[in-house]
Amino acid sequence: MRSDLDRLMAARELQAILVTGGEQPNTARRYLSNGVDIHGGMTIKKHGAEPVLIVGIMEVEEAAKSGLQVYTHNDFEWAQLLKAAEGNGEKALPEYYRRILAKLEIPPGRIGVYGVGDLHIWIDRIEKLRAALPEYTFVGDSGMTLFDEAYVTKDADELAIIREVARKTSEVLQTTWDYIAGHRAEGDTVVKADGSPLTIGDVKRFVRRELLDRELEDTDMIFAQGRDGGFPHSRGESDMALRLGQPIVFDLFPRQLNGGYHHDVTRTWSIGYATPEVADIYEQVTTAFFVALDAFEEPGQPTHIMQEAVQSYFESKGHPTGRSKPGTTEGYIHGLGHGVGLNIHERPSISHLAKEDRFQVGNFITIEPGLYYPERGFGVRVEDSFIINADGQLEAITNFHKELVLPLRG
Amino acid sequence: MRSDLDRLMAARELQAILVTGGEQPNTARRYLSNGVDIHGGMTIKKHGAEPVLIVGIMEVEEAAKSGLQVYTHNDFEWAQLLKAAEGNGEKALPEYYRRILAKLEIPPGRIGVYGVGDLHIWIDRIEKLRAALPEYTFVGDSGMTLFDEAYVTKDADELAIIREVARKTSEVLQTTWDYIAGHRAEGDTVVKADGSPLTIGDVKRFVRRELLDRELEDTDMIFAQGRDGGFPHSRGESDMALRLGQPIVFDLFPRQLNGGYHHDVTRTWSIGYATPEVADIYEQVTTAFFVALDAFEEPGQPTHIMQEAVQSYFESKGHPTGRSKPGTTEGYIHGLGHGVGLNIHERPSISHLAKEDRFQVGNFITIEPGLYYPERGFGVRVEDSFIINADGQLEAITNFHKELVLPLRG
Repeated sequence: MRSDLDRLMAARELQAILVTGGEQPNTARRYLSNGVDIHGGMTIKKHGAEPVLIVGIMEVEEAAKSGLQVYTHNDFEWAQLLKAAEGNGEKALPEYYRRILAKLEIPPGRIGVYGVGDLHIWIDRIEKLRAALPEYTFVGDSGMTLFDEAYVTKDADELAIIREVARKTSEVLQTTWDYIAGHRAEGDTVVKADGSPLTIGDVKRFVRRELLDRELEDTDMIFAQGRDGGFPHSRGESDMALRLGQPIVFDLFPRQLNGGYHHDVTRTWSIGYATPEVADIYEQVTTAFFVALDAFEEPGQPTHIMQEAVQSYFESKGHPTGRSKPGTTEGYIHGLGHGVGLNIHERPSISHLAKEDRFQVGNFITIEPGLYYPERGFGVRVEDSFIINADGQLEAITNFHKELVLPLRG
Repeated sequence: MRSDLDRLMAARELQAILVTGGEQPNTARRYLSNGVDIHGGMTIKKHGAEPVLIVGIMEVEEAAKSGLQVYTHNDFEWAQLLKAAEGNGEKALPEYYRRILAKLEIPPGRIGVYGVGDLHIWIDRIEKLRAALPEYTFVGDSGMTLFDEAYVTKDADELAIIREVARKTSEVLQTTWDYIAGHRAEGDTVVKADGSPLTIGDVKRFVRRELLDRELEDTDMIFAQGRDGGFPHSRGESDMALRLGQPIVFDLFPRQLNGGYHHDVTRTWSIGYATPEVADIYEQVTTAFFVALDAFEEPGQPTHIMQEAVQSYFESKGHPTGRSKPGTTEGYIHGLGHGVGLNIHERPSISHLAKEDRFQVGNFITIEPGLYYPERGFGVRVEDSFIINADGQLEAITNFHKELVLPLRG
């Protein structure tokens, strides 16, 4: 969590962390800047000190909302530096950085460079900074990075937000279920009042509106029917009509508007009825879900044990898994879960390939077993999100039932 | 445009470009992959050849929509490499890249690394790749980068999409104007039927819905009233009530859902009436807008001439500008415009600091003069988007009137 940052910096012998990047949403910059993410700006944290923001003059008002010290490019005479470099920004930048590091009294040593941005620009820029400012060592980070370690546990303020996003997302599952249920069928096609088919595009539009009404935004949900659901990340075809007895994988992972905390939940629905084959597979997946919960004992336990319990269960039922048949595209083919937060995928990983990750108090994680048989025309996945609360318990924060069959009332 | 890529690669002596990154929207990856953006995947283009996608097994179905050759991590035995490296992905990666480059028969030489991702990961990874694969030189790019150059002109397929996004965005301006106009005032506060104030949050919610109904998404619009409008990038306060006679800067720059082409337009509205001071400034800004249009002569002309024409006009009216008073936070304090496309800010820049940029057929640009006086309680900006069409003409594609005063009908 945020209060770990100085410790994590010390472990990496970093005098400062510089979080920068372009106009893309930048979770590390937001995290360091009390929820403010200034597009194109920079946030620097000296070891032991509060972060400081450096932004364009047009962003001052937004940056001030962080409550942190704010400087503008003017404070370091950027325009004059740029003019002296005849408009060549890359040429002007090293002196600009030198002035910033001097102003913040960052001692010579290692500077960790973090954030999200254009890779080509930063691969190039780091070389120039290293050449121009030899007293500093600009370094990257890999594996379990500083922010991975910080994000892995959430503090009380974050958990309060996460619970609220979970509550709203669960509401949207209910309103979506009710929306679909309000339709009727003609033959095996779900239709609207005017007799035209209800499409995946219609449902996605409904879901996005329901999210917006709750100040959440979609981040490319999955609503994949039949064979499409057999490919875990297939988004679904907008113009496809909903059909009776065709299982739909509905994976919803919205976040607070304009960047912020996510929720992550998946349901599999079969409208009207389920085929015996799908009902049987669904029962196995929900059983696997409880196998996973049962495998949780306490914080400190390696996460891969939970994945292996699920793999053993699925293998006992005759399904190939990523362990029994690496590279399989049928059966149980992905990790059991992952951390969630400002990013949709954070640590810990719950995978047989992630041997180092352990459960900790403050984790916000998913558990999402699934079985995929595209050639048999379906996939099934069930996912809830959990936190590991202060009592060390795995606590479900998704609040929505797990019925497979969605009956039409229309 | 896309057909320039081989030429742009040759100019940089690149054997291949490798477009990679994380789960963030990645415009270069999307651009190279016929509109598909596989989160976490990689697209490689060998000079003279079509791009190739490399994705996880879960993404195969989505990747295939590109119509390009698709490989999976399995094709390079990623799981086995990871296992051999005891789960340490960074240790396994160089051999993985070696196999990919060999399979695609990329000759030894320079490989340009592009895309959007976590800077710390790639700063670190590039060093490891350079050490492990000395026959290749992995390079970044800066200044006017390869993708900047490609993006600067749009082909006919892109322009057709851009016109359609412009049409839809213009519609949303009209429905938003009508929505606000449908309210009434109590005193100087705009109120709803139940007498409660109409807030900026209400308007933003309405706008986001209108965008969604047209398969567009908001990317953090500005709707800033009064003094807030005096800070060009202040987003506006959600709980602030709309008030008569307080100018509102409404800057809308949505894009196609889940990444895609943007539009960019700004209007300044004053509800019920405008103060003489604001009406006068508004007239100057709209005059500046036409000064800009008049400064355009033909493709090939340096863009900064247009900015300088506007600066000269504003200076003649007694306003400080970024040229007459670098670093000013009052008056005309930003560039006149910029390219737009998959990214909201592309080249060319229309700024007195960008001496190299020239207008070209196929440009998609904004023109957006403004005046900012936060201490006097307002800002004013007017912006339309334009393309430079095949006839070399500057053609407006935003289609919405520029009335300042928005009268209430309620």
